[in-house]
Amino acid sequence: MTANKNMKYSVLGLILMCISPLLHAEDGHSLWLRNKGKGSVNVVCSKNSPTLALAKQELREGWSGNAGATVNLILKTDKALKADGFKLKENQIQANTESGILYGVYELLRRQQTGEVIKEETINPSYERRILNHWDNPNGTIERGYAGRSIFWRPSKDSLGVTEKDKTLWTEYARANASVGINGAVLDNVNADQKMLTAPYLERVKGIADILRPYGVKTYLSVKFSSPSMIGGLKTSDPLNPEVIKWWKDKVKEIYKIIPDFGGFLVKANSEGQPGPQDYKRTHADGANMMADALKPYGGIVMWRAFVYSTSDEDRAKQAYGEFMPLDGQFRDNVIIQVKNGPVDFQPREPFSPLFGAMKKTSVMPEVQITQEYLGHSTHLVYLAPMWEEFLKSDTYQAGVGSTVARCTDGSVYSQKHTAIAGVSNIGLDTNWCGHDFAQSNWYAFGRLAWDNKLTSEQIADEWIKLTFRNEGAESADWNNNFLKPVKEMMLLSREAAVNYMMPLGLHHIMSANEHYGPGPWWAPARTRKDWTPPYFHKADLTGVGFDRSKTGSNAVSQYHEPLASQLNDINTCPAELLLWFHHTPWNFKLKTGRTLWDEMCYKYDTGVKQVRQFQKTWDKIEPYVDADRFTRIQNKLRAQSQNAQVWKDACLLYFQQFSKMPIPYDIERPVNNLDDLIKNDMKRR
Amino acid sequence: MTANKNMKYSVLGLILMCISPLLHAEDGHSLWLRNKGKGSVNVVCSKNSPTLALAKQELREGWSGNAGATVNLILKTDKALKADGFKLKENQIQANTESGILYGVYELLRRQQTGEVIKEETINPSYERRILNHWDNPNGTIERGYAGRSIFWRPSKDSLGVTEKDKTLWTEYARANASVGINGAVLDNVNADQKMLTAPYLERVKGIADILRPYGVKTYLSVKFSSPSMIGGLKTSDPLNPEVIKWWKDKVKEIYKIIPDFGGFLVKANSEGQPGPQDYKRTHADGANMMADALKPYGGIVMWRAFVYSTSDEDRAKQAYGEFMPLDGQFRDNVIIQVKNGPVDFQPREPFSPLFGAMKKTSVMPEVQITQEYLGHSTHLVYLAPMWEEFLKSDTYQAGVGSTVARCTDGSVYSQKHTAIAGVSNIGLDTNWCGHDFAQSNWYAFGRLAWDNKLTSEQIADEWIKLTFRNEGAESADWNNNFLKPVKEMMLLSREAAVNYMMPLGLHHIMSANEHYGPGPWWAPARTRKDWTPPYFHKADLTGVGFDRSKTGSNAVSQYHEPLASQLNDINTCPAELLLWFHHTPWNFKLKTGRTLWDEMCYKYDTGVKQVRQFQKTWDKIEPYVDADRFTRIQNKLRAQSQNAQVWKDACLLYFQQFSKMPIPYDIERPVNNLDDLIKNDMKRR
Repeated sequence: MTANKNMKYSVLGLILMCISPLLHAEDGHSLWLRNKGKGSVNVVCSKNSPTLALAKQELREGWSGNAGATVNLILKTDKALKADGFKLKENQIQANTESGILYGVYELLRRQQTGEVIKEETINPSYERRILNHWDNPNGTIERGYAGRSIFWRPSKDSLGVTEKDKTLWTEYARANASVGINGAVLDNVNADQKMLTAPYLERVKGIADILRPYGVKTYLSVKFSSPSMIGGLKTSDPLNPEVIKWWKDKVKEIYKIIPDFGGFLVKANSEGQPGPQDYKRTHADGANMMADALKPYGGIVMWRAFVYSTSDEDRAKQAYGEFMPLDGQFRDNVIIQVKNGPVDFQPREPFSPLFGAMKKTSVMPEVQITQEYLGHSTHLVYLAPMWEEFLKSDTYQAGVGSTVARCTDGSVYSQKHTAIAGVSNIGLDTNWCGHDFAQSNWYAFGRLAWDNKLTSEQIADEWIKLTFRNEGAESADWNNNFLKPVKEMMLLSREAAVNYMMPLGLHHIMSANEHYGPGPWWAPARTRKDWTPPYFHKADLTGVGFDRSKTGSNAVSQYHEPLASQLNDINTCPAELLLWFHHTPWNFKLKTGRTLWDEMCYKYDTGVKQVRQFQKTWDKIEPYVDADRFTRIQNKLRAQSQNAQVWKDACLLYFQQFSKMPIPYDIERPVNNLDDLIKNDMKRR
Repeated sequence: MTANKNMKYSVLGLILMCISPLLHAEDGHSLWLRNKGKGSVNVVCSKNSPTLALAKQELREGWSGNAGATVNLILKTDKALKADGFKLKENQIQANTESGILYGVYELLRRQQTGEVIKEETINPSYERRILNHWDNPNGTIERGYAGRSIFWRPSKDSLGVTEKDKTLWTEYARANASVGINGAVLDNVNADQKMLTAPYLERVKGIADILRPYGVKTYLSVKFSSPSMIGGLKTSDPLNPEVIKWWKDKVKEIYKIIPDFGGFLVKANSEGQPGPQDYKRTHADGANMMADALKPYGGIVMWRAFVYSTSDEDRAKQAYGEFMPLDGQFRDNVIIQVKNGPVDFQPREPFSPLFGAMKKTSVMPEVQITQEYLGHSTHLVYLAPMWEEFLKSDTYQAGVGSTVARCTDGSVYSQKHTAIAGVSNIGLDTNWCGHDFAQSNWYAFGRLAWDNKLTSEQIADEWIKLTFRNEGAESADWNNNFLKPVKEMMLLSREAAVNYMMPLGLHHIMSANEHYGPGPWWAPARTRKDWTPPYFHKADLTGVGFDRSKTGSNAVSQYHEPLASQLNDINTCPAELLLWFHHTPWNFKLKTGRTLWDEMCYKYDTGVKQVRQFQKTWDKIEPYVDADRFTRIQNKLRAQSQNAQVWKDACLLYFQQFSKMPIPYDIERPVNNLDDLIKNDMKRR
């Protein structure tokens, strides 16, 4: 099916025949770490430890600098350096900590492999804690996982014992994380299972922690708030109840006894049916602080999620702010409020959550989603760094111009005892870890942005492509022009393309229910929570479409700081890409493009489809530069994505046309699916 | 979902609001006969009869000429006129027969409604017999029917009695046929059921014949060759056996007793498992002549099908010629050999069957397929007249230049006792008769071409569109420019588009097995007749693709007359549209376009997809000019067609690419389906 063999009739064929022997099949398992070193190196280091041993080994196996060079690894206290920071020179890495040395080694090797300049530099991470959240269930399934089952947990019938295979995989996992600066992993789903805190499971957590430790990766656990009553034999889990307090203290002690560097707890409480302090008429602060007190002696932290919304009539986008702002200042200093990037739920585009920058007396950490729950699972090629960059660079104005989300969370604006950032993992047992070869770039990008929240998406893509696809012997200018450039362009456009063909102009939450994959703007069965149905969010009717969150609507705009609040409140100044997030907009509203809203919507969806088709062409053209395995895998996925994009376009345009009653502009390619069929098929899948 | 109401924001909307009240929903049941007359007329006719009464009624109800005019209907013998012919003037129709008068009336009314010139003209039909073949089974199903069940037959459990509803429907059917000149109907499937010749079924045939008679439509039956042994109690059906001969004579007598104008028999013998004279070591001539002798006294004819091919290794395309040519001159004069237009089986494009013009001492009639077995069923908009026009105008050279198929079959070249043409009907119980509103145009076009085989597709489309879609009050220039012109263009392109996205460049028989709808170039299970599998026909391998029928191959070219044989035999002079029919062609063979075969194939498939997308645009644009019912029905079908075209393109390009090993040119839109999935889905449907 692929065309890169025996192409004997073209010049391209001749080129291919020269290149082909250099390309070998790649299953994607070695990620961005597939390159071997090219020369010997002397490593000088006065100390020894498991972590330093790894640092030395990586240098020796990955060295691509001058052959026979000497590299000094120096551990000494330097106030210019944070815990994981390091000073980098061509032949020297200096750090306060062993993990700092290891990060320095990965930085040095990466620069060698990508051809980046290595000059004297002091490099510190943006966040103290850079954490993957695994939504892995103890039975081995993964909520919103699209790359196979859990690497940590197995079906209940299986033993919890740690195997050699486990250790190998966890080592590879830890190394990949360390290589991009990730230093923490929450091992289980935020929809937590109470049995995770029982001895047999904790024993396995210890096994995992032992493997992850040398790579500087701490383990954390999601815990069920009602654990005391569910597994502790107590009658309550009231956070102010002395027995409950004692239970948690004892549990924490038990954990630290076997995992001395345990990171802490992640808690989803009073959210989507999870138990929490409000069940006992206590506040989120009461609950979080109780746990924080238990963890404090060991240096552990509580990451308390702000993703809460009740069944009230209040605009769902407003509720987290409404619940948490009154508690600002009431949390212990080892509590961090973990806030999803947007106020609803990881949609292709959301404005930043208004809690960022607003909670001035509380540590706040961003949570982004690496797994593509709403962005085409592991079928669509969507490079997420541009979304995260857009988010991190959003100005909250909370402490004046330049109070970006990044600066409001990394300690630049507010003094925080702890800083952190979390990404919901896209990792599973699939050979290539992430299902889609390009989904690896999102794991990579999360780590890189967590390390340095000022990096550009372009720079990260550049690194990742070079590390992941560049082969020895590839002539540089040729490869740069014909592979690196077009593939990078594709990656950088891919998130906007997904927005275009899924939810342009601020549309959100109009996906198919449950699986959150295809379109489902129509879905609104009786007896379903309204704020789980697309019509709640798009509010299409004969007069227009969009959620009125202006001052005359739900007034969500007022949760933002001026001048942003006013900008968003005015339909004429609200950015077009968030228009329908904040405004129920007439179908004939004229946008700055000169088009009506309806026409603009048509062009956006159509542009999305065209962009994916262009990605297909881009990918097909680079065939001579990539091994057949990855070429074909990605080609096949792009075909599916292209077809899906068309389905999204057809479904949304035909659905909304019922309200707009306006024709799809005649220069746009027509739908090829009928709305009735799409709805029927969607319903069949449920 | 449709957009032609309440379009309050555009100028188009205003136009629509003016037009809309004039458009009323149309279910398609009244076909091209939906227009009522506009003025009174005096009809003068000295005679009376059921047929003449119909002629008068049609004139009175359909008159759109000068109000109060007088029209004379004159029956008198005129040697310039054939049986159904007539002389037309603005106010007079003269004919030898009553049916001639009726045809003249329909011609006059049609010209009034379409605005065609009415001047003094003598008009004779090209063929004496213009016959629909209904592949209807006695249980009411229809082989290759895509418009519901049979209008003639019902499930076996139902009574055979004729109801008022039957009569109404048959009357409408007869009238539609008469209005386009069709004067015969074979009421049952060529894969005949012996019980059709039993008394209860013949009684129903009589009921049908009684309704069809006044409209000049004769009834015929497909008969099973083994009827004498199957229902006659005889031990054999050997055509030379006296008892068998007597049985058929008696049966024919029985039929004519109740249906005095019965037309005759259609026979599929020794073909695809049907019994025939060869079962008794007799020839096709022996079989046909035996029946012809029985029918002769009553003026009946035998239409004996040449669609035969054995399981031998002989090229299937050659076999009909091989079997029938040696019998030329051996058939009775009331036998007509019914030959499918192409030598294989109603493919989107075939060369004409070499039997046309070659059988110089035998009457030969063309059989074309109106039902779209291989052309997208009643889902695809494919106007077939261009295919038939191409076929009828093909030069056989059998009696010198200009010996077109049309002239070789209509009596212009050879003296034939009888001339005829058959079309396999696309009619069923669907409200709009044909499933697809545009499929009506194929019924219409068949009738018109059977009447006048020199008509152009363009002229027929012009008539049909005006009769079928034009509404009173439509401003002429506006309607002509914005509806007639684009819709006609779409129709005229539609068959070539289907060829492009299904089987371009002479590819044939690569459809999905059984249902003959989607693509299935891969289908070749073990233990299946090779000449039923696509690989038998496309013969793709690493060196090229196509069936070598040149002199060094199967030598099918030699069945054609010079200079055609030599032209087809030479890969450099064989027309590109038949290249792979006649030549196994190297993938890198350069065509006159300058492209390699592989590239040309890619562009053809892609062009087909683009053409259908253009049809969608065309149709969407004409929305203001058509009622919402038909607009939406056709819009929905075009969407499906567009998606199907993409599937065809993807399936065929990805399948053949396995052999060509060449890339799809990079300016072509990429496949969005994966070959494995397409094959899997295809197999699932079987």
